Amino acid sequence: MFKIVEWKSNTVVMIDQRILPAKEKYLVLRDYKAVAKAIKDMVVRGAPAIGVSAAMGFALGAIKVKTNDKKVLLRELKKITKVLAATRPTAVNLFWALNRMNDFVEANAELSVEALKKALVAEAKRIHKEDIEINKAIGKNGGRLMKKNWTVLTHCNAGALATAGYGTALGVIRGAIEAGKNVKVFADETRPFMQGTRLTAWELKKDKIDVTLITDNMAGHMMSKGLIDAVVVGSDRIASNGDIANKIGTYMVAVLAKEHKIPFYVAAPLSTIDMAIKDGTEIPIEERDTKEVTHWAGKRVAPAGINVLNPAFDVTPAKFVAGIITEKGVATRPYRAAIKKLFTK
Amino acid sequence: MFKIVEWKSNTVVMIDQRILPAKEKYLVLRDYKAVAKAIKDMVVRGAPAIGVSAAMGFALGAIKVKTNDKKVLLRELKKITKVLAATRPTAVNLFWALNRMNDFVEANAELSVEALKKALVAEAKRIHKEDIEINKAIGKNGGRLMKKNWTVLTHCNAGALATAGYGTALGVIRGAIEAGKNVKVFADETRPFMQGTRLTAWELKKDKIDVTLITDNMAGHMMSKGLIDAVVVGSDRIASNGDIANKIGTYMVAVLAKEHKIPFYVAAPLSTIDMAIKDGTEIPIEERDTKEVTHWAGKRVAPAGINVLNPAFDVTPAKFVAGIITEKGVATRPYRAAIKKLFTK
Repeated sequence: MFKIVEWKSNTVVMIDQRILPAKEKYLVLRDYKAVAKAIKDMVVRGAPAIGVSAAMGFALGAIKVKTNDKKVLLRELKKITKVLAATRPTAVNLFWALNRMNDFVEANAELSVEALKKALVAEAKRIHKEDIEINKAIGKNGGRLMKKNWTVLTHCNAGALATAGYGTALGVIRGAIEAGKNVKVFADETRPFMQGTRLTAWELKKDKIDVTLITDNMAGHMMSKGLIDAVVVGSDRIASNGDIANKIGTYMVAVLAKEHKIPFYVAAPLSTIDMAIKDGTEIPIEERDTKEVTHWAGKRVAPAGINVLNPAFDVTPAKFVAGIITEKGVATRPYRAAIKKLFTK
Repeated sequence: MFKIVEWKSNTVVMIDQRILPAKEKYLVLRDYKAVAKAIKDMVVRGAPAIGVSAAMGFALGAIKVKTNDKKVLLRELKKITKVLAATRPTAVNLFWALNRMNDFVEANAELSVEALKKALVAEAKRIHKEDIEINKAIGKNGGRLMKKNWTVLTHCNAGALATAGYGTALGVIRGAIEAGKNVKVFADETRPFMQGTRLTAWELKKDKIDVTLITDNMAGHMMSKGLIDAVVVGSDRIASNGDIANKIGTYMVAVLAKEHKIPFYVAAPLSTIDMAIKDGTEIPIEERDTKEVTHWAGKRVAPAGINVLNPAFDVTPAKFVAGIITEKGVATRPYRAAIKKLFTK
């Protein structure tokens, strides 16, 4: 099986998701700046995978600081945090992971420079391992909601490739299948970056899960034909009221699901929930290079000189969400109370 | 200005819409089979333009039949009709144009072979000329519905390039602008064939009309941000009850418009209305080569061996439509009666 992001003899190794499925190529990253660039350039993507990568980038940055002076190390860790935090604004798992690493530094103030470095590597590896376990719990909890022979529409890639492994939305699919339910998947291609075509279709096929690829604009037509029983997507940030930010186009799918009375589920770890924000209006939406829309493989498709917009995410209000599937259980309406409760479990 | 389809010294000349906007290249078609292939391969597309092209293909076929025997000519015209009719199933203008040419043959039974050939060429040219006039009338009627400073979302290309000139949906935009209203356009890129990116953006830019390109899955996000005031699209076939078939993704836009209480208009000539069918369920939906979805410029993007669907059109039920803008006026609910009335004007 492919690995998404891995700690390997003091380097971070990532599968280059930009060139999948044409090539299965692994990049070896030797310093934290390379990890930051990989996150920014979408070598790695998906909120949980970004979180794990940031933690590993932090640890990699730490071990490469040549000092025996704790103060110097702490000063460098601040810089490393800043660089990693500046890569992508929407997925809160990035900030969650950096906070966890920094909290760890604070909580282990007594450690020597060398001991702290080692402990940070161990902590990053722990986050990686925990993420897989969390995804499996999400899969189990979400798998229960899926019915036999359902066809589930997903948008973007919230699969193994978006996490340390197993996946959130696709974890739910895997959980349902492991529970003996014959679930099939429709995958939106997900313009402009084509995560559905390149990543979701690829990893489901590897797992021999039945997947049908459609363009994003076919989702409504397929629902109207009765071909979709449920929607399951991931999330990059969930507000404390249950509003969810996810890949651009998710909101469209949610509106279509409502029109066709199809349940719309969101699968994400607790680390994706941002209790510091009241609702989705506070989630920063990343605007990416418009070349993602106007060009294909470096070649211009659109006429030059026109206006183009390229928000990478959108916000789906909580009222469209049938349930938020986490490792601690499934939150349902009213979300503010249900989400709060998840954190006390 | 560019020409879409033209009769030129016993050939049919078409701009090759498959390679726009990279290249502005004209194909010279010397027999009806070449015209049929051009329609099938989407050198020319858009319901009205397909109708005009089919009429010209019919005339071209007629003049190339080497005979003085009327019976031979009539037999060949049947064959020509069959070949042209088999190109694309959804746009009813194709059948409308072929019916009109065949009706013309019947109505002019007294003409000699040579006179009939000449008359058929004249009739095809007349259809071409009428189409531009019809579009301008649609533009005038629809322009009245647009308000000053509105931003109008359109899907696919129902512009000059989809007609003999001026356009239906984009004719409404042009009509509004000619009436002094400062209307701006958002264009869905329109996967998989990218008519929005390649054609709508290109022809609006040529006309110096403000256009912003988005991916199809951004339409909901833009509406939720209050950036869209109305939707205007074309149609490939309108049922007698007002259900409309149009480019895949149109239904998605209609559902989103309903959710955001934005009027969703359809602009089309009467020749797009199929009074022979009761509702949209009777409209045949063309399934095209799945390579349009899995490949880009001949190169595979999706993994091999997965399932793919590629319906080229979808049906939007009449209940989503705020008005059908035709050359004879704007039909509104209840559509069955309103549409009937249009034909008596």
